[in-house]
Amino acid sequence: MKAMLIVAHGSRREASNDEIRELARSVARRAENSFDRVSCAFLELAEPNIPDGLRELIRDGVRNIVVMPYFLSAGRHVAEDIPGEVDLVRGEFPDVTIGLAPYLGLAHAVPDLLLQQAAIEGARQ
Amino acid sequence: MKAMLIVAHGSRREASNDEIRELARSVARRAENSFDRVSCAFLELAEPNIPDGLRELIRDGVRNIVVMPYFLSAGRHVAEDIPGEVDLVRGEFPDVTIGLAPYLGLAHAVPDLLLQQAAIEGARQ
Repeated sequence: MKAMLIVAHGSRREASNDEIRELARSVARRAENSFDRVSCAFLELAEPNIPDGLRELIRDGVRNIVVMPYFLSAGRHVAEDIPGEVDLVRGEFPDVTIGLAPYLGLAHAVPDLLLQQAAIEGARQ
Repeated sequence: MKAMLIVAHGSRREASNDEIRELARSVARRAENSFDRVSCAFLELAEPNIPDGLRELIRDGVRNIVVMPYFLSAGRHVAEDIPGEVDLVRGEFPDVTIGLAPYLGLAHAVPDLLLQQAAIEGARQ
């Protein structure tokens, strides 16, 4: 079984955390054959945290996980905190493959996405 | 003249701010007929701030600006801070049209983008 774990920062505003949970469901609907499970976890301020999110997938039989940082820039969270938490769980489960995807901001399609979003506003003017 | 102003949070890490400046150049290269100018501004911690970014475009002859919040969730920054700074400049230049695009996290293509980024890592495993 293969899974994606979307990792977001987490917010004091519960509606923002719910947006991430809804995003995970939306990705799961599109994942079809690429991922059997898609769930989310938070670096801070919301549940589950990253180790617990990974452990839940492993407990459910997942043996291959891609961690997807839902961040736009490579600050300390992306460069140090997320890899550190992933390494913790790698140490607990050496037989499970846990990979770390490039953070969202690195996606080559981001410039086109910005143009599309701007066009929505342009159409309203 | 029409312009897009990409608004990011701003970081103490100058490399992160430079990523945004490079993103603006990348969007500009793709903007072709949709925008004559694409620049960026920061909510805090980096220059220019939002009012100065807008004023520079207006000084250069732009009369139609779409502000594009480079944010993944609708916290206080997206809901209050950015609209407040935009309103300030709207008050100074009532003949200039300044629209506010939906923040990046609302883009319908985000789930597919996450799947693409995860596939990059999946291919490495």
